[in-house]
Amino acid sequence: MASVRVPSGGDDWIDGLIEAQRPGHSLDQALYLDAAVFERDRERIFGNHWILAGHVSQIPDAGDYVLFEIAGESIILVRDRQGAIHAHFNVCRHRGSQVLLEPAGNARNLVCRYHGWTYACDGSLQAAPRMPDGFDARGHGLERCSLRIVEGLMFVCLARGAAPDLDAVVAGVTPYLRLHGIAKARVAHRAVYPVRANWKLAVENYLECYHCKPAHPEYCGVEIKADKIGDGSPAAMARFEARNREWLARATALGTTLPEFGTQLPLDEGLLRAQFGAAYRAPLRAGCRTAAAEGRPVAPLMGQFTEYDEGETALGIGPCTYMLAYNDYATFFQFVPRAAENSDIVITWLVDPEAREGVDYDPARLTWLWSVTTEQDKSIIEANAAGVRSSRYAPGPSSLLERDLDGFREWYLALVGPEARRKRLTRREGGRYFGI
Amino acid sequence: MASVRVPSGGDDWIDGLIEAQRPGHSLDQALYLDAAVFERDRERIFGNHWILAGHVSQIPDAGDYVLFEIAGESIILVRDRQGAIHAHFNVCRHRGSQVLLEPAGNARNLVCRYHGWTYACDGSLQAAPRMPDGFDARGHGLERCSLRIVEGLMFVCLARGAAPDLDAVVAGVTPYLRLHGIAKARVAHRAVYPVRANWKLAVENYLECYHCKPAHPEYCGVEIKADKIGDGSPAAMARFEARNREWLARATALGTTLPEFGTQLPLDEGLLRAQFGAAYRAPLRAGCRTAAAEGRPVAPLMGQFTEYDEGETALGIGPCTYMLAYNDYATFFQFVPRAAENSDIVITWLVDPEAREGVDYDPARLTWLWSVTTEQDKSIIEANAAGVRSSRYAPGPSSLLERDLDGFREWYLALVGPEARRKRLTRREGGRYFGI
Amino acid sequence: MASVRVPSGGDDWIDGLIEAQRPGHSLDQALYLDAAVFERDRERIFGNHWILAGHVSQIPDAGDYVLFEIAGESIILVRDRQGAIHAHFNVCRHRGSQVLLEPAGNARNLVCRYHGWTYACDGSLQAAPRMPDGFDARGHGLERCSLRIVEGLMFVCLARGAAPDLDAVVAGVTPYLRLHGIAKARVAHRAVYPVRANWKLAVENYLECYHCKPAHPEYCGVEIKADKIGDGSPAAMARFEARNREWLARATALGTTLPEFGTQLPLDEGLLRAQFGAAYRAPLRAGCRTAAAEGRPVAPLMGQFTEYDEGETALGIGPCTYMLAYNDYATFFQFVPRAAENSDIVITWLVDPEAREGVDYDPARLTWLWSVTTEQDKSIIEANAAGVRSSRYAPGPSSLLERDLDGFREWYLALVGPEARRKRLTRREGGRYFGI
Repeated sequence: MASVRVPSGGDDWIDGLIEAQRPGHSLDQALYLDAAVFERDRERIFGNHWILAGHVSQIPDAGDYVLFEIAGESIILVRDRQGAIHAHFNVCRHRGSQVLLEPAGNARNLVCRYHGWTYACDGSLQAAPRMPDGFDARGHGLERCSLRIVEGLMFVCLARGAAPDLDAVVAGVTPYLRLHGIAKARVAHRAVYPVRANWKLAVENYLECYHCKPAHPEYCGVEIKADKIGDGSPAAMARFEARNREWLARATALGTTLPEFGTQLPLDEGLLRAQFGAAYRAPLRAGCRTAAAEGRPVAPLMGQFTEYDEGETALGIGPCTYMLAYNDYATFFQFVPRAAENSDIVITWLVDPEAREGVDYDPARLTWLWSVTTEQDKSIIEANAAGVRSSRYAPGPSSLLERDLDGFREWYLALVGPEARRKRLTRREGGRYFGI
Repeated sequence: MASVRVPSGGDDWIDGLIEAQRPGHSLDQALYLDAAVFERDRERIFGNHWILAGHVSQIPDAGDYVLFEIAGESIILVRDRQGAIHAHFNVCRHRGSQVLLEPAGNARNLVCRYHGWTYACDGSLQAAPRMPDGFDARGHGLERCSLRIVEGLMFVCLARGAAPDLDAVVAGVTPYLRLHGIAKARVAHRAVYPVRANWKLAVENYLECYHCKPAHPEYCGVEIKADKIGDGSPAAMARFEARNREWLARATALGTTLPEFGTQLPLDEGLLRAQFGAAYRAPLRAGCRTAAAEGRPVAPLMGQFTEYDEGETALGIGPCTYMLAYNDYATFFQFVPRAAENSDIVITWLVDPEAREGVDYDPARLTWLWSVTTEQDKSIIEANAAGVRSSRYAPGPSSLLERDLDGFREWYLALVGPEARRKRLTRREGGRYFGI
Repeated sequence: MASVRVPSGGDDWIDGLIEAQRPGHSLDQALYLDAAVFERDRERIFGNHWILAGHVSQIPDAGDYVLFEIAGESIILVRDRQGAIHAHFNVCRHRGSQVLLEPAGNARNLVCRYHGWTYACDGSLQAAPRMPDGFDARGHGLERCSLRIVEGLMFVCLARGAAPDLDAVVAGVTPYLRLHGIAKARVAHRAVYPVRANWKLAVENYLECYHCKPAHPEYCGVEIKADKIGDGSPAAMARFEARNREWLARATALGTTLPEFGTQLPLDEGLLRAQFGAAYRAPLRAGCRTAAAEGRPVAPLMGQFTEYDEGETALGIGPCTYMLAYNDYATFFQFVPRAAENSDIVITWLVDPEAREGVDYDPARLTWLWSVTTEQDKSIIEANAAGVRSSRYAPGPSSLLERDLDGFREWYLALVGPEARRKRLTRREGGRYFGI
């Protein structure tokens, strides 16, 4: 068979490629396709940042656990008898078997199915039968994974050393999460959309609404910003501004406004700034109380809302975790890399903890808008990936509505590029780039 | 596709391997299996030659389009309102999405589904909403693909620079295509046979009839040359020669003979010389009016035929496009590489433009012979590929009936080998190697 | 995921990695995952050892053949008219096609389906039509594969040169095979379990019973050693020793004991020493006459057994072939590599040649225990492989019940490591390492 031949010159070519990227344009082909670039992404991005792994309502009772899988790793999130939650790499310290195989369950201890090595919920090895004298059980606990719980959201960091500081982001987004009652909310549904495309193509799709009008008619039915974005005419702008003023007055009266957080792009450069720690609120179309069919409520009011203010909240933490929340439900979007050209889009729908399925909400109505919209995005992203594979693909220029993509790309290039670039950008942008 | 990074030591090992090939033998294993060799094939063969992409009858009306996919590229073939046909790489100049996704359709303009960038049929960018000042729409048209229409056949060339000269081949084959009325014919059926094998194993299968007797009983029922080839005895040769004389007399009387074109192998070295621009006519078995069950007609007479002359026409243009045509129908065979060990055999059946499906022809009867024969070939080619993967595969010697394979291999090795070899062969063979 | 390591500088990194392995621990990640290591395994292990390919009862009549596939090779095992069995690489000497495609059948000659090249059962080329003058048919026979038949078991060796000496192993295991009448036995069933894991993870699973108690309740119902192994308490040990004494007395009286053969591990280090030429007998649980539901017979007595002695026989030949045999049936386990992370476990059940399916045995009852147990093992091995892919996988220490794994690993490392290591181990261990 063919001998596997070696790429010449180590990884320097990636540094060189990154330095050659043209600002304000999509990235070169290799950054979306190459397996070595993906390894770099895994190491520098997914191996070194806080990633949303789930919500505490998924494991309410002692012994409840869920597995979270990302970029080849499986993480156990388990609640102990004192109610504390722990995160461990799902790798037995004996011969490396995955300890738990079911995606979720309840277990008094974490018992490896292979040879019965038994770990406590805190990861310590409790029993390992017939080991020779001198075996040090204390040195063979499950490897701990960094975990941080933010208003009920479980974030993990795969880094071997210290995880990046998340305090500034947490401080910025917490008021938003509290407005929506995320800490006490309950997972109503979760869906995984496998996408045959590099994770960056999926994130880029999420970070702009330039495509909303051509691609998402259902979404545009409830989102007023689609008017403004899709057209840009003075008339559309005026319509949007009028609606925004009307909504601000209403939300202010209800006490549901919050100071914007994060990157301070001028308002007319796009409303979606949900990136690397950012949050804002904005109006839905007049008459739409939530993001659902005909704008009609699909679940009981959540969090601090006492009546419908007709707004939505957009929020981002890190490059791959975003929230879009309405008065009666919240959605979290995760972009989970699988391989250079495979990713998952994972959506979690949250509702008020008291809401009863089939009584207070109908899952089909709850999930309709973001199911149909994400199916559209999956198709679009895969067509994008197919075109990027062509010999004739060339990075193209951003529109006025894609400034967030440029921000995302700069941030990405700084992280995977040579150290000099990383330092340069950090200096120039001050506190903007979290987690570097 | 991604610029696959260069294996250390460059591609010299491929050059070395090519120079080591033994004339009159099948190729070394790596030339059928190796991914780097396939990249070289893509660059030197499929990236630099004219390839049949379809027939104009597939897009009869203004706005009609078809996509043609080969070796990782997607090409749009579209007819404009003036009736002109254009070929473009199916890659949006914005962020690289494939512009069109359906394999065929009708569109007033070519509108990218992602962000609505709108191209005219000639590829020029007509609309790109909300681009910043200074954006040059004229610099962002679809990348044009070289296109040449020969008697209704649409050929594309993926080369970035000038496409190879095809004039000599076109001049040679045009009388044959006219005899069969190809320019006005209509596509009756199209079938794709995915084959798990390198494209060269599929072409080699096509280029010899040594396997016809062991493998293709249905085919041998109508093809007199199978007798001669499968046996080679003086009696069989005499039978063939008698039949050939009889047929020549008939065809001459009907005015359906044509001067042979292309490589001038002696007649007794095989009748299939359909290669790199070659064409000839030959008889079917006595009593067979066409290549179909029991030799009975399956469609109305085509082109210049006014009655059945009982002949067939074989014709080749470039390494991967062949025609076998009879009095009442024509088939085009394309060998389309997908990956080092994956190819498609694509067959297109053409009939007279006035022939009505279900009335004048039955698609099942029309396609029967070449469907059953190609299924057999798919199985054979895949068994060949399986054997070539063995550590014990060794190039074996050609029979007397495989001289066209030797010609194909020489031509292939000249194209993918070192430049010196290419020059040497060109000089020696004069005008034989088209498209180098 | 595995840090994909750059195989810079040829294969030296494999030698270095092997020298860095820690004794008494599982192997480093790359040895279970890396494609270059798998190539080395193919060359040094599967390309250079005797591998069980089948049983003569699969091809009882003249012209009967079976194909055996391993590590990319297909081997024809065929019986000629004199009753002799031949093994050939299934690669036509013409253009490399696999000659035979059906997994088993009967053929007067071995006729390549592609061009009809015809080989006798001894591999000599009998007919190759229309080859040019000077073609040497004698130089184009099928490539012979080394074959050795041991008590009806057909072993092949893929080595190009001399196959390793197997005489010492054959001498050691023959009495065991004769006790069970393997030479005359008949294949009753064969099952293939594809496993997504490196072959070494599958063999390691086979070579220890540390996992039997957590993973195999059905197995533990009939196997007394599971008690001892799973617990290790003085009470369990005493129970086992008492049962062993009782059984030895019975077996001695029946004449069904045999001297142990192979590596002489102390008894308390585990009963499974079936490795690289090793064999022993041991008792089942009291009251269990065979390894089946409730210990009840599932087929007529085999071989030299005249009544049930309630024992089992474990036997190994080379790294990938093992037998577990009972009084009424025998099973052979083969570990067949497919790719770095894909293997097959192949199980063959043998019964007395006179036993009639549906009358003397019920295939479902016959195969029940090892079917259910192997499904469990497949799941376990795949979970092991999944954990080994994690960045946090680290080789862990062996228990007292995994000494055979350490022996297997030492043997493996000696074979795939630098020559110095191979010599060192051979010298130290004397005749222990067969087939080096």
